[in-house]
Amino acid sequence: MDRLIEAIENAQNPSVVGLDPTEALVPPQVVASFADEVRDSVEDENELPAAQLAVAYFEFNRAIIDAVADIVPAVKPQIAMYEALGPAGIDVYTMTCEYAQQQGLYVLGDIKRGDIGSTAAAYAGHLSGVGAGETAYDPWHEDAVTVNPYLGTDGITPFVDAAAAHDKDVFVLVRTSNPSSKELQELDLAGGGKLYEHVADLVEGWGEPTRGERGYSRVGAVVGATHPEEGAALRERMPHTFFLVPGYGAQGGTAAGVAGMFDKDGSGAIVNSSRGIIGAWKKTGAWNESMSADQALDLVASAARDAAADMRDDLRVSVYR
Amino acid sequence: MDRLIEAIENAQNPSVVGLDPTEALVPPQVVASFADEVRDSVEDENELPAAQLAVAYFEFNRAIIDAVADIVPAVKPQIAMYEALGPAGIDVYTMTCEYAQQQGLYVLGDIKRGDIGSTAAAYAGHLSGVGAGETAYDPWHEDAVTVNPYLGTDGITPFVDAAAAHDKDVFVLVRTSNPSSKELQELDLAGGGKLYEHVADLVEGWGEPTRGERGYSRVGAVVGATHPEEGAALRERMPHTFFLVPGYGAQGGTAAGVAGMFDKDGSGAIVNSSRGIIGAWKKTGAWNESMSADQALDLVASAARDAAADMRDDLRVSVYR
Repeated sequence: MDRLIEAIENAQNPSVVGLDPTEALVPPQVVASFADEVRDSVEDENELPAAQLAVAYFEFNRAIIDAVADIVPAVKPQIAMYEALGPAGIDVYTMTCEYAQQQGLYVLGDIKRGDIGSTAAAYAGHLSGVGAGETAYDPWHEDAVTVNPYLGTDGITPFVDAAAAHDKDVFVLVRTSNPSSKELQELDLAGGGKLYEHVADLVEGWGEPTRGERGYSRVGAVVGATHPEEGAALRERMPHTFFLVPGYGAQGGTAAGVAGMFDKDGSGAIVNSSRGIIGAWKKTGAWNESMSADQALDLVASAARDAAADMRDDLRVSVYR
Repeated sequence: MDRLIEAIENAQNPSVVGLDPTEALVPPQVVASFADEVRDSVEDENELPAAQLAVAYFEFNRAIIDAVADIVPAVKPQIAMYEALGPAGIDVYTMTCEYAQQQGLYVLGDIKRGDIGSTAAAYAGHLSGVGAGETAYDPWHEDAVTVNPYLGTDGITPFVDAAAAHDKDVFVLVRTSNPSSKELQELDLAGGGKLYEHVADLVEGWGEPTRGERGYSRVGAVVGATHPEEGAALRERMPHTFFLVPGYGAQGGTAAGVAGMFDKDGSGAIVNSSRGIIGAWKKTGAWNESMSADQALDLVASAARDAAADMRDDLRVSVYR
């Protein structure tokens, strides 16, 4: 986790921009501008909308990455949004990750994979790539990925091994930000504590052999911003586990609420905002349908930069006390 | 789940072939035979091995699908094995699913996705495709997918809705076949029962509005063959939930062991075997390095067909009592 911590310190900004495009978040003239370009690339007329949207997602992401790269340490593309478009979307996911890495950003792939044995090892290819040595090929361009713990250690170890071998990181779901997360995660266990606390202890243990110079292991935890008190208690419970904190902004999490998820030095966590930044252009009131695609992307970029700077400033006040 | 049940009845065979290729499972001359073909398709020399393996996976899968299509009702491609090769692998995953559907097989995409809200809705695109009506485009060609329950109802509902709208199904992880599955799934709850039993009750409830003519809902459960007694108890506990049973063969599950996961009519479950069928050629002793690629694929196909027929016959004896 040392690379991420250093990037956060350099930017003095413990936040990450979620690159989760949807059709509703991309200005329509940007999508329309690629109608001709993609026509030759598809075999079937019905593939056109997905192909067009995929290209538009990349240009949208590039505008945002360019706008925020000097003020945020990291981006978190949510692979589901790309996967929804099929293989064309997956291509754009990898292009987005590669472009973000080229701009110096730490790329946290929000893939929430989880399986067992040889299958988990295959998913760990997100971190290890294909092959090794001089002919190694990394199709994904991710610095970390998120993983689901329901299958236990078998499903985690291949990711931890791959992370250790490639100077990358893993974030395991512990306490998610959504309302129904309580259905499993808050269950009281016969041996005491709640399920998410048991998972927290497993995560702290999984990370133990990989602690870095800053005291945090390569195995982080996903802890939703919508649970401020639980998050603060988990901070105490998992002293060597770095937190990825989703749910800030649109889902209701606040800078004051997440303050307890940081350690006494203002480290230990990174807070994600997606719609609040990439959809900030919709709240400016400045968009109109007669804008050109380039004008619309400029608006997306400047609104995203302003929103990212506001979030940074909010977090600085609460976290760097 | 009616379509799957009907396919099983037509084949009198409650088994599914796991299409989980790895480099070790594909005869080397098959991989080598595509060296020239892929050279023009890659931008970077280092992409060659992954691109070559991806094409070889498709030909390997096609040989197996052709060999078993008239004796098995379904195939289950494990997306991780393809994802390990990057976007080129994802393309081949979708090509495999499409080809299997064209041969009349029910395609169970083993994707184990799980996320919340709009993100889960994006993943549910695996079942709903892109767009609607006459211009709808289905990039995935899956009839069902597997889903992880750790995030609760929020993560499941979008899949169930998509399944109901498109006559497809969902299988939720309940009790997985791997050794460390006990770390979470067997935890005793303060309110009584174990975590996997609580999840089982949620799954039965999630399926309730979607019960079909055969009495089973569109929300199935993944229950490992390595837990015969728990599986039989779950069969009683979840009377309207169809089971996908992995872990037969290579992982130690037996036909006798899975018998209790079927209902009194011999329905209610489908048993998966992957390596035992797609890797059967390695146990024939008939392979040698001087074979042509076509000869090696013929061996793969005939060994897979024999192994699939053996599994069917074993299950018939245990299940159709």
